[in-house]
Amino acid sequence: MPTIPPRAEGPVGPVGPADLPDDLVDGLVAVLDLVRRGVARTRPEVVRASGLGRSVVAGRVARLLELGVLDEHGTAPSSGGRAPRELALRHDAGVVLVAPLGASRLTVGVTDLAGTLLASLDEPASIADGPGPVLDRVDELFARLLDGLAAERGPVPVWGVGVGLPGPVEFLSGRPNRPPIMPGWDDADVRARLSERWDAPTWVDNDVNLMALGEVVARRHARQGRAPLGDRPDQPEDMLFVKVGTGIGAGLVARGRLLRGAHGCAGDIGHVEAPGGADVVCRCGNTGCLEAVAGGAALVRRAAEMAADGTSPALARLAAAAPGGLGVEEVVRAAQEGDRTSVEMVQASGHLVGQVLATLVNFFDPGLLVLGGRLGAGSDLLLASVRQGVYQRSLPLATRDLRVESAAAGDDPGLAGAAAMVLDELFGREQLRRWLPQGSPSGRRATAA
Amino acid sequence: MPTIPPRAEGPVGPVGPADLPDDLVDGLVAVLDLVRRGVARTRPEVVRASGLGRSVVAGRVARLLELGVLDEHGTAPSSGGRAPRELALRHDAGVVLVAPLGASRLTVGVTDLAGTLLASLDEPASIADGPGPVLDRVDELFARLLDGLAAERGPVPVWGVGVGLPGPVEFLSGRPNRPPIMPGWDDADVRARLSERWDAPTWVDNDVNLMALGEVVARRHARQGRAPLGDRPDQPEDMLFVKVGTGIGAGLVARGRLLRGAHGCAGDIGHVEAPGGADVVCRCGNTGCLEAVAGGAALVRRAAEMAADGTSPALARLAAAAPGGLGVEEVVRAAQEGDRTSVEMVQASGHLVGQVLATLVNFFDPGLLVLGGRLGAGSDLLLASVRQGVYQRSLPLATRDLRVESAAAGDDPGLAGAAAMVLDELFGREQLRRWLPQGSPSGRRATAA
Ligand SMILES: [Zn+2]
Ligand SMILES: [Zn+2]
Repeated sequence: MPTIPPRAEGPVGPVGPADLPDDLVDGLVAVLDLVRRGVARTRPEVVRASGLGRSVVAGRVARLLELGVLDEHGTAPSSGGRAPRELALRHDAGVVLVAPLGASRLTVGVTDLAGTLLASLDEPASIADGPGPVLDRVDELFARLLDGLAAERGPVPVWGVGVGLPGPVEFLSGRPNRPPIMPGWDDADVRARLSERWDAPTWVDNDVNLMALGEVVARRHARQGRAPLGDRPDQPEDMLFVKVGTGIGAGLVARGRLLRGAHGCAGDIGHVEAPGGADVVCRCGNTGCLEAVAGGAALVRRAAEMAADGTSPALARLAAAAPGGLGVEEVVRAAQEGDRTSVEMVQASGHLVGQVLATLVNFFDPGLLVLGGRLGAGSDLLLASVRQGVYQRSLPLATRDLRVESAAAGDDPGLAGAAAMVLDELFGREQLRRWLPQGSPSGRRATAA
Repeated sequence: MPTIPPRAEGPVGPVGPADLPDDLVDGLVAVLDLVRRGVARTRPEVVRASGLGRSVVAGRVARLLELGVLDEHGTAPSSGGRAPRELALRHDAGVVLVAPLGASRLTVGVTDLAGTLLASLDEPASIADGPGPVLDRVDELFARLLDGLAAERGPVPVWGVGVGLPGPVEFLSGRPNRPPIMPGWDDADVRARLSERWDAPTWVDNDVNLMALGEVVARRHARQGRAPLGDRPDQPEDMLFVKVGTGIGAGLVARGRLLRGAHGCAGDIGHVEAPGGADVVCRCGNTGCLEAVAGGAALVRRAAEMAADGTSPALARLAAAAPGGLGVEEVVRAAQEGDRTSVEMVQASGHLVGQVLATLVNFFDPGLLVLGGRLGAGSDLLLASVRQGVYQRSLPLATRDLRVESAAAGDDPGLAGAAAMVLDELFGREQLRRWLPQGSPSGRRATAA
């Protein structure tokens, strides 16, 4: 893949968040957010949903139209009277750069302000190369995506940048915290690095949180597709998203928003004590961690033994046929094809995960439990075992109508999730206040750096 | 204690929530809530904190003053220029009735709109008598408290009613759900019963959630006492409150608000599986529940055995001296006095609770873990064991600066907590919308019933 010389400066365009006037903080964003989320589509709906007066709403909408951030079009058919004109966020007023980075793959994308993916690039890369080389490469690929867009429609302002990392991240500072599989990344100022390069606010979170956000978006879209026009599509929702892949982690969603906890590490359940796993040593140095006993890496290791010692001829066949040797996919496939050893392994894993999740369901009462990750979303067998474990041990009230489902999001929920993180933070009133301190026009830069 | 004939009708006064005009929903409450929480104390502060325009704020404040809900007084000293007048919620504009009911005690109180307790009554009563007799008695005591107030200052409008129950409650419907120690209460419409009697919105929650809210209030007051005037005292806070008393339960606070979960039963951790407690049968019918192994009732049962069989002379002495026999207090005292058997029991209990909490700290990342209840708040030994268990097993990021503390709230956090629940719901914008549906002036009653 050819490399591209880094651009001397970020692209500039009609209106980026840094160019928006200060009175944005004083109300424009609240209006924008209601329209963006589809909660209000006309001026009267904004009046109703915001609690602001008619004339105030009229003034703000006018200003947003003038700034080119909102658009209004066609009057919807109405029974008598003048139909109000429909407002919409101008999705093409800017773009968001997203980079959900995996342990061994680097994915970058560019979305519009609705979070719709416009273009993406993907290549093998080792996160263990460290923040310098990896983020340089991310910048190169971002630049290439933006050049492609600019060629089509002229320069586009970057409104925000979102990064996902395969390890614990302190969300408020945007820095990884002792990530076990990311040598050289501990405490690296990823946010400053990218926000300076792209002159745009940047947020960094762990991969599981972004998958959870991607799932929220996917389910919201599915609902909106079904919902009649004018319905409120953005109902608050409680969800516990659990990724079961090589490792195990969770994302907590309360009323449609991600809960990150005091240090931004809520959901780190991979290293909680698994029932009865006391003697297994984990990569974190502790023993008996859930991930070390029931995660994909543990399953693959056991599967390799079963293939080698003749216990499972089916696994031995799949191991010989797979170019990279046995992986999570092979174990899942062997179980689907009825290989008894694999079925038992997947069920045992699901049962352990289910036991831990039973405690968490009692504690968090999520209403919806979603399994993602290559093992979680890929195996009905695992889903069934987890469901059984949860129902066996959770309280009747918490499991009444509890849905336990596979992830609805597509192949790369990280791209959608990273865009959702940026847009939620950018338009979320509370968060924006953090980024744009009052009375300090340059504060946004100071905070970003 | 003499009984009082029930009043034919609830007290009426100048302005109750049912009398407030509909435009309350359209913005007045947002302003009121900022002032009430001390986030904004002057018109310019309301402008800044709400993002509303000056003239809008001026209009709303004028309306609230006219309604007698807000008050303005003395100008604060200022360096040059006209000092803005200070706004305050008129705490005496109405009252809140609260009844945190225990298994064997009935407590009722009346607070002002700041949640300050004006009067309370307390008497022995069995919750097992069922909702009819218990709530009749609550009504009688409420009426007595209100009569006392009316004699002093004329009739006072009831703005809301808050009830706590010692069992799982579905918060949205205000009904107990299969409460183990409350025969006859399952699915009882406690909300309708009280909201009809007192013509005021009513909320019902379990006792642990109310204790957690009481703790939030106590800590907020402690901070406000220290904070310089004009400081923002209502910082968002994440807290995990754990009651260790006869039973065990938790309350989840995220950004200063209680998280109740999809069915309102978040925090029900008494019946999660305790490590290594597989053979102990719990009152819920399951085996190995945390509460059955490490709760106060379990400790007292074991202590009675140790007292009877001569293992612990200290416990035997305390048992002989206590009028009601051994209770949680006696075990705590014996441990404090160095009785080896009691020390070991309390430490073992703390260690088990700590192991379960380690998982929940990783999951929820609270920043602050508070132990309440007679065992949790009463024993430094238990606190130390819990702390040790949590630190041993939680991730470094989640335990960085994690505070593990005893409850700061006083003897009856349930009264303060019940008032906080009602005031949060009453003034919380989002919640108010649920109570006062748009375009339906009588909707508030329909929802309450
Ligand atoms: Zn581990
Ligand atoms: Zn139980």
